[in-house]
Amino acid sequence: MQPKTPSESRTTMTDMVLPGETNPLNNLFGGELLARMDRAASIAARRHSRKITVTASVNHVAFNQSVPLGTVLTVEAAVSRAFRTSMEVYIDVWMEDRYNGERSKANEAIFTFVAVDETGRPTQVPPLNPETTLEKERFEAALRRKQLSLVLAGKMKPDQATELKALFYPPSS
Amino acid sequence: MQPKTPSESRTTMTDMVLPGETNPLNNLFGGELLARMDRAASIAARRHSRKITVTASVNHVAFNQSVPLGTVLTVEAAVSRAFRTSMEVYIDVWMEDRYNGERSKANEAIFTFVAVDETGRPTQVPPLNPETTLEKERFEAALRRKQLSLVLAGKMKPDQATELKALFYPPSS
Amino acid sequence: MQPKTPSESRTTMTDMVLPGETNPLNNLFGGELLARMDRAASIAARRHSRKITVTASVNHVAFNQSVPLGTVLTVEAAVSRAFRTSMEVYIDVWMEDRYNGERSKANEAIFTFVAVDETGRPTQVPPLNPETTLEKERFEAALRRKQLSLVLAGKMKPDQATELKALFYPPSS
Amino acid sequence: MQPKTPSESRTTMTDMVLPGETNPLNNLFGGELLARMDRAASIAARRHSRKITVTASVNHVAFNQSVPLGTVLTVEAAVSRAFRTSMEVYIDVWMEDRYNGERSKANEAIFTFVAVDETGRPTQVPPLNPETTLEKERFEAALRRKQLSLVLAGKMKPDQATELKALFYPPSS
Amino acid sequence: MQPKTPSESRTTMTDMVLPGETNPLNNLFGGELLARMDRAASIAARRHSRKITVTASVNHVAFNQSVPLGTVLTVEAAVSRAFRTSMEVYIDVWMEDRYNGERSKANEAIFTFVAVDETGRPTQVPPLNPETTLEKERFEAALRRKQLSLVLAGKMKPDQATELKALFYPPSS
Amino acid sequence: MQPKTPSESRTTMTDMVLPGETNPLNNLFGGELLARMDRAASIAARRHSRKITVTASVNHVAFNQSVPLGTVLTVEAAVSRAFRTSMEVYIDVWMEDRYNGERSKANEAIFTFVAVDETGRPTQVPPLNPETTLEKERFEAALRRKQLSLVLAGKMKPDQATELKALFYPPSS
Repeated sequence: MQPKTPSESRTTMTDMVLPGETNPLNNLFGGELLARMDRAASIAARRHSRKITVTASVNHVAFNQSVPLGTVLTVEAAVSRAFRTSMEVYIDVWMEDRYNGERSKANEAIFTFVAVDETGRPTQVPPLNPETTLEKERFEAALRRKQLSLVLAGKMKPDQATELKALFYPPSS
Repeated sequence: MQPKTPSESRTTMTDMVLPGETNPLNNLFGGELLARMDRAASIAARRHSRKITVTASVNHVAFNQSVPLGTVLTVEAAVSRAFRTSMEVYIDVWMEDRYNGERSKANEAIFTFVAVDETGRPTQVPPLNPETTLEKERFEAALRRKQLSLVLAGKMKPDQATELKALFYPPSS
Repeated sequence: MQPKTPSESRTTMTDMVLPGETNPLNNLFGGELLARMDRAASIAARRHSRKITVTASVNHVAFNQSVPLGTVLTVEAAVSRAFRTSMEVYIDVWMEDRYNGERSKANEAIFTFVAVDETGRPTQVPPLNPETTLEKERFEAALRRKQLSLVLAGKMKPDQATELKALFYPPSS
Repeated sequence: MQPKTPSESRTTMTDMVLPGETNPLNNLFGGELLARMDRAASIAARRHSRKITVTASVNHVAFNQSVPLGTVLTVEAAVSRAFRTSMEVYIDVWMEDRYNGERSKANEAIFTFVAVDETGRPTQVPPLNPETTLEKERFEAALRRKQLSLVLAGKMKPDQATELKALFYPPSS
Repeated sequence: MQPKTPSESRTTMTDMVLPGETNPLNNLFGGELLARMDRAASIAARRHSRKITVTASVNHVAFNQSVPLGTVLTVEAAVSRAFRTSMEVYIDVWMEDRYNGERSKANEAIFTFVAVDETGRPTQVPPLNPETTLEKERFEAALRRKQLSLVLAGKMKPDQATELKALFYPPSS
Repeated sequence: MQPKTPSESRTTMTDMVLPGETNPLNNLFGGELLARMDRAASIAARRHSRKITVTASVNHVAFNQSVPLGTVLTVEAAVSRAFRTSMEVYIDVWMEDRYNGERSKANEAIFTFVAVDETGRPTQVPPLNPETTLEKERFEAALRRKQLSLVLAGKMKPDQATELKALFYPPSS
């Protein structure tokens, strides 16, 4: 299969925060943000694989900034690494200053999707070819996250988790 | 005020069509599409003006294609012409083929927004500087649409509508 | 086919404006109003034709008044002219004073619907027989709007647009 | 206070049943129908009283007919009796045949509202003057329902419930 | 059929009140509360019968307390009496104090559901075996409510309504 | 501060899956499930702390089972470990068999919340006192997850992560 770049799956969802989507503190309700992330990320996974994709896990979401009512919010998702039948999708969430238009980072998240065929069985996806420095960093880190999740689930022995061990055994030791 | 280009206000809202947003024929419900257009277009108007903007009118929406459940839909809005305190926003709606990823045009729409200050009074917006051929065509046509709407509302005499008259009086006559 | 009057398709949708339907200024969100208009207008088109109807275009919507949270809003739609397979629907939106009950006009809109058969092909609808003065005025103006939209779409030559030309060539000339 | 007729508070809410409002059997979800009833009935109570009104109780709702996806549904509410500070509102729900336009009764409901002033204290409402035979029957029955609810709540002794006793003691006995 | 206890059908739905679910006074919108009740009660009816169940009627809802934005609200539903093919479900609604966690009663409601087979015909449900004092009281009262609703609907003669008569004829008479 | 047990914060949200909450495959839309988890988990955090709580991160969500339309779904959340100002909340999601009522595990998730005072500054929460074996296991694992997240964020040196090291250094080494 022909590799694809992150740009080919990049998905941009710019939208406002309306009152029906806020929590009692007048900020975007966390669940609504998670829902927008899931929608954008699953489109990215579909654009990379051109298959039916299902959310397999949410690996990490950091809510660094609360997002006030009326904000213009951009959720940007792109595949960060493809494994045989699964894809890690990295999501950046940006807020836009109402007056000068500057964008600042509000949140980050990592979701994993699996591509399935019509019968629901996992099916192969194209490899990912990262291009920019940031894309390459995320591509590398994705393997560590994959191993970590396998170790924590008891599906990989810690000493096989080559990428992870580097974190805990300083190379000099 | 410093002119801005359409790119500076261009707003992209890519999202799926979920079952709760369909009509009884399993296509995107017209009202839901109008709502998405209004959200995207008002963000474009805000990006151009950096002011509070209110929807003044919907000038035209053509529903050329019905949009089936499950479609990835991209609503793209950009300011097409700025008048003193109002902005015409042109909206293109694209559907994406699930298998080969090709985009096709689903709908088009034109909305008008007015920029207001804190007291709700119309306030000035920057001029628009169109760059591409398409942007220039839309910029020209916006003036005809403006005159047309003034004539139809009885606020401009037909013989002052210089742009419109060209349509009805062939230049040779 | 037996002609019908506008009363036979008139559709009344009275409802409140709740917080989940407002914009950040605490007024009815424009997209929600467009959605209510589309629902009411498509019922009117169905009542006139007793066929499946699909939204073909939004020809004009004027947002004259913002509609505050808590307002009782009445959307009233009726067919204003029937062509062979399409219908123009005129929509009046009224706000009701909370204390004395007086109604004032908030907005107006014009939508066009096409009647289709089970295979999706346009199918004939009954003619419209306007009765009141206002219904007759709207019936006449509908033809001008139809010609205008054909001219703007390049589907009719301006000099065939008999109704429109009257606007631009004063009869005396 | 000047009495009002049921016509003065009659509220008509005609709307479609869209997929996002159905239950897993593809009929209108009961909770959504109750919500529409509450919206229409509270508008009727407000039109009668021109006060802030709050739902005090739902006295009865009969779901006689399930309402399929795509139906045009009309919820019609009018005050059926006014007490000192409360109003009984009678709600009729009609379905419309898609092909011949005939209306059939789908459901009925009775809600009670209380009018309150700015501080939330119950405040007086105008008396109701029923006109038609049906309005008069509902007006009479409202008193029986009121007594019944007071007896069941232990706030009225059964032998003071003059209207109710007639039901259980045949006049001849 | 094996009798079941109310505990076996008891359904707990704890959730917050978000801004999109409020009325213009910033309290939970009545229609939204009715919708939550209907969802919880129909789950209770399904748990008792293990059949498809449809809402037959809402017999009573008392809105004693308004429920402010941000409240943690618990809707608790359990079958209170089973008849041959229908079930009365009793619903208690509790609000939770934000600071000390104490629960107070906000509302009560009684709904009736019918169990149906695949063809929509009423089908038998297990009897109910009440255990606690409160469950027994509600079980007894359910029969009175059933008779009352039959009498009011003209389907039972008042002198056959043995349970009800006790209310109106003091035993000493 | 008085320690609390997981039971004291346990929050049960049982609800159905309606058509407006599904994805195009007729299963519960992932984003809607994440939203329900966030609502239940934030109530658990509030019950433990009796403070304002904000979602700090989603640490892990595993979508093991897709949840079909019409399912009765129970989201159960309880605090699994309290740190100084933050709380880990463990969420179990259960599906209920329509016919025999047996519950099976559908998903699991871990969220972290921070308690804040009125000015938005982190504020102390009571310690957690786990009781059951499962609660104790989750309590232990929470510390490993906390260290892991600090290491990955570069806020803790790997060799200080005493709990984590045990995973990668077999005790014998």
